[in-house]
Parts: sequence; structure tokens; C-alpha cells
Amino acid sequence: MTDTPRSAGGPLPSPVLHHAVHRLSYQDTDAAGILYFAAWFPKMEALVSEFMFLNGYRQDRSHAERGWMTVTRAATGEYLAAARLYDRIDVSMRIGRIGRTSFELAFDMHRLDDGVDVGRGSITLVLTDLDQRSIEIPSEFRRQLETWAA
Amino acid sequence: MTDTPRSAGGPLPSPVLHHAVHRLSYQDTDAAGILYFAAWFPKMEALVSEFMFLNGYRQDRSHAERGWMTVTRAATGEYLAAARLYDRIDVSMRIGRIGRTSFELAFDMHRLDDGVDVGRGSITLVLTDLDQRSIEIPSEFRRQLETWAA
Amino acid sequence: MTDTPRSAGGPLPSPVLHHAVHRLSYQDTDAAGILYFAAWFPKMEALVSEFMFLNGYRQDRSHAERGWMTVTRAATGEYLAAARLYDRIDVSMRIGRIGRTSFELAFDMHRLDDGVDVGRGSITLVLTDLDQRSIEIPSEFRRQLETWAA
Amino acid sequence: MTDTPRSAGGPLPSPVLHHAVHRLSYQDTDAAGILYFAAWFPKMEALVSEFMFLNGYRQDRSHAERGWMTVTRAATGEYLAAARLYDRIDVSMRIGRIGRTSFELAFDMHRLDDGVDVGRGSITLVLTDLDQRSIEIPSEFRRQLETWAA
Repeated sequence: MTDTPRSAGGPLPSPVLHHAVHRLSYQDTDAAGILYFAAWFPKMEALVSEFMFLNGYRQDRSHAERGWMTVTRAATGEYLAAARLYDRIDVSMRIGRIGRTSFELAFDMHRLDDGVDVGRGSITLVLTDLDQRSIEIPSEFRRQLETWAA
Repeated sequence: MTDTPRSAGGPLPSPVLHHAVHRLSYQDTDAAGILYFAAWFPKMEALVSEFMFLNGYRQDRSHAERGWMTVTRAATGEYLAAARLYDRIDVSMRIGRIGRTSFELAFDMHRLDDGVDVGRGSITLVLTDLDQRSIEIPSEFRRQLETWAA
Repeated sequence: MTDTPRSAGGPLPSPVLHHAVHRLSYQDTDAAGILYFAAWFPKMEALVSEFMFLNGYRQDRSHAERGWMTVTRAATGEYLAAARLYDRIDVSMRIGRIGRTSFELAFDMHRLDDGVDVGRGSITLVLTDLDQRSIEIPSEFRRQLETWAA
Repeated sequence: MTDTPRSAGGPLPSPVLHHAVHRLSYQDTDAAGILYFAAWFPKMEALVSEFMFLNGYRQDRSHAERGWMTVTRAATGEYLAAARLYDRIDVSMRIGRIGRTSFELAFDMHRLDDGVDVGRGSITLVLTDLDQRSIEIPSEFRRQLETWAA
């Protein structure tokens, strides 16, 4: 398995923008003894939300401050290896594909204990107006996305 | 174990107001192979929210319609027997203790397959004004609570 | 939007095998006032788990009884319309693409109140041996999948 | 509000044994715009599980290594102030009441941004044998608990 995000769309992967280390606990596991598949999604969202917040994009004020907000359009997860109770997993985030009205965040889940990639994921956010209609990414924010992706 | 809710405060338990049957799935369990302790809480909340909604108390319009809303003040769970994957559990709700500014919902988790009580719980809601200050339960809503409890 | 599952791979969609109606409650929503994107995944899993159980495939005994078990390989969600507190959503499950070692379950989230499709999703399960190595779908189970898909 | 854990049972509170800082994200909130009441419980469990693990008590090997394991007997949460999206909350853990067959972990949720205590909670663990029957806390582990509480 390569380290390159599938959706980077070019020869060079975009850089890691944010990450967090989680030690898996009972909340993350299920009766099969391994990570519950849906457990990655909130950890992925927490990275997006904190990264945007730290860069001045408060989602809850986005309409008032910018005239647009983001809504989740799609999410995906892939499970590459069984993650287990007590594993320490680094979840990292990069910019994926940038579209006309939406952009993708790409995630890698990497087990620190043995260096195994245990999962990958994505969240696609679409920009919308107040009525939840999708709008074209404004040029200023597009430049920001391209800077993050570079 | 008696069937009487601990917090009914009198000789007769208050009647079951709402209930739902859940077949436990992987989401509810953890690596210990049994129900994850926190899994009851959202199921308890869903009963409260739907019961209130069906009785004309939309929480999201409560301020506008009545001048007060409810905020969760406390929650408790007790685990009486191990619940497992595929168990069918009936979660039922009654009115518990009614206080000056708050009231309690009491929950029983009962396994249909063998009749065992697997858990109990409570959610205490406090009435607040728009500034999240607790207020006395208005007499009209108090009568409603007493009717539900009778 | 068409009613045909994207992954049915043919002119006729496969039939709905299992479904459940959920009234969205606070657990399902977030501070944006709409459904939290990850809330569908456990509801999707619960359908798979109960359907398999009711058809004699207990996941927790699958190795002992059949020599194979299933592991989640991938999951996807698409968000088509904002789902809100108190909405009643029918989540339904069909068989999607059947591969050599894996098969897909396809899900539709349909709001009963106004008939709007609010989401779609998929879970891909891979068959594995005891050492979590993927194995070819045994012919008996393949016939079962094809029957469910027909 | 005093800083002393309610259940410390003595004049001096027991020391903080473990803690973690969480920035609240959408996963933690609900349509009321504030923290979903059940969101604290997994964060509390994660502290217990990691603390025990780091001190040599792997729950998943406890039976094999010690002849006993722990099962959650009760959990409580109190909500003292509204916690919101993006708040940074320090969740800290102490030893609470030590009983004959069970012991309590006490938790404080403290908002770093303004120093407000937003919540308190507890998890009570009971020691059991392989058949899930509660057993007296062995003297060696009791001494360990008392050391942690001192």
C-alpha cells in the first residue's frame, strides 16, 4: 500500500494539515473485538472542524461572516487492517480533490505501534447558500484551498 | 429485583408512557462482547424526544411557543445484567420524581428473550428560560406531568 | 434522482430485503441543526446485522459454523437533503454489487413525511478466514446472495 | 461549586490520575446547539481504559492474568453549564468511593476557555469472576486503589 492519498489527483500528495492521535478504547470497538467501522467518522469530522476553526473558519458563523457555509455531501471509509483496543492511531488530514462547488478532505489512519495503515477515509464538503443550495467556491476560498493543498 | 421504579416516590409505580424495542447490533457492543454502557443513553433520549413531540412539546419550538425549554440536568444508568449482540431489549419510560424546577424520566431495559431486567436509567430535565436559567415548572405543565405520572 | 440503486449493475434494482423507520432525535443531530453525517452508519449496520441474524447468519458464530466470517471493507454515505430533528426516515437495504471475495449492501434513506430521498449509503463486507485473510465467496453463500439480489 | 469530588468521602479530594483535553466538535453537539448529554460518557470511559492500560491493567487480559475483571455497574452525569461547539474541555479522573466489590471513578469537566466547570460524572466498576458474579476486591488491588486515591 502506498502512502499517497488516492484522491490527490497528481504526482505529489498534498501535505498533512492536521492530525490527532487516538488510543482506541471500548467506545471504538464492537463485539467482534475490533474497531467498529463507523468510529472513524467522528474522529475525521473533529479534525476538519478544529482545523477550520483554527484557521478562522467557524462553521457556525460562516453564513454571517462569508455568505456561505459547508454541508457534508459524502463520506467514505476503507478498512485496511483490523484496529484493536488500546491501539494508538494517528488520524491525519489532507486536502483531496477540489471541485467547482465542493472539496474533499482525505484522511489516513496509521497505527503508531507497528506502522500499519489501518484505514483511509474522505469527507466531501459542498458550499451552500442560506437555502442549502450549492454555490461555486468563491475565488478567495479557492485560493485558500489551493494553498492548503500545495 | 422489584419492578417498581426506584424514584416513583410512592406505593404505585407510574405507568409506562412510551417504549421501543431494540435488537442490539454491533454499534451497541464493545470488545468485551457485551453492551457498551453508554449505548442506553441515546435510546433513552430518543424515547423522551419522541414522546414529548407526539404530545405537542417540540423542544425546538418550546421557547417560542411556551417561554421555556428543557435542558438535561443529570443522567444515570445502572447495569443489572450483561446484554449481548442480537438481544431484543424493550426500553420503557415513566415519569419519575417531579421537583420544583425539574422532573425525572425513569427507564427500564428489559430483555424480551428471557424476561431479565438488564438495566435502569434516568434523565432529569430542568426547565429554563431563554438565558438557560432554571425556572419553576409552570402550573399547566405541572398538571400535565402529574397526569402522565398518575 | 432515480430510485435505482447505483450499484445494482443491471436494469432492475434488487429488492428491499430489510428496513426500519427511525424518528430522528437529538442523538442524530448536531449544532448545525441537521442530521450528523455519521448517524446513518450505525443504522445501516443494524439493518445488516439483524437481516443476517434473522436469516441464520450469526456473525459471532460464523467462523465456527461456516469457516468464514465477514469484515467491513468499506462504507460510504451520500447526503442528498437535510434531515432534521423529528423527521421519520425509512432506511432500507438491498444487495448491491457481488464481487469475488466481497459483496455490497446498498441503503436508501427516505423521509416518510414528504417522500424526499435524504441519503444513500453502502457497506462492503469481505469474507475472511480466521486469520482475517480474504477468501472467495463459497458457492453456497454466493447462491444465497444471488437469491437475495434477484 | 466546590472543587471537591462529591464522593471522595473525606476532607481531602483524591488527586487527578489522568486527564485529556477535548475540543468539542459537531459529533459532541445536538440540534439544541449545545453538548449532547451522552457525549461525556465515552470520553470518561476512554480515560479509565487508558489509565488502567498504562498501569498494567489490560481489561481484555484481566481474567487470564488476575482471575477477575471489571464490569460497569453504574454511570452518572451532571450538567452544570452549557458546553458548546469549539469549547476546549479538560476531562479529569480521580478515584471516588471504594466499596467491597466495586469502586467509583469520579470525573470533572472543566472548560479551559473560561474556567467554568461544565459537568461532573462517575463510572462505578464492579469486580467479577469469569461468570460475571461480583467478587470482593482482592487485597492487592485494594491497596492499589488506595494508593491512587491518596
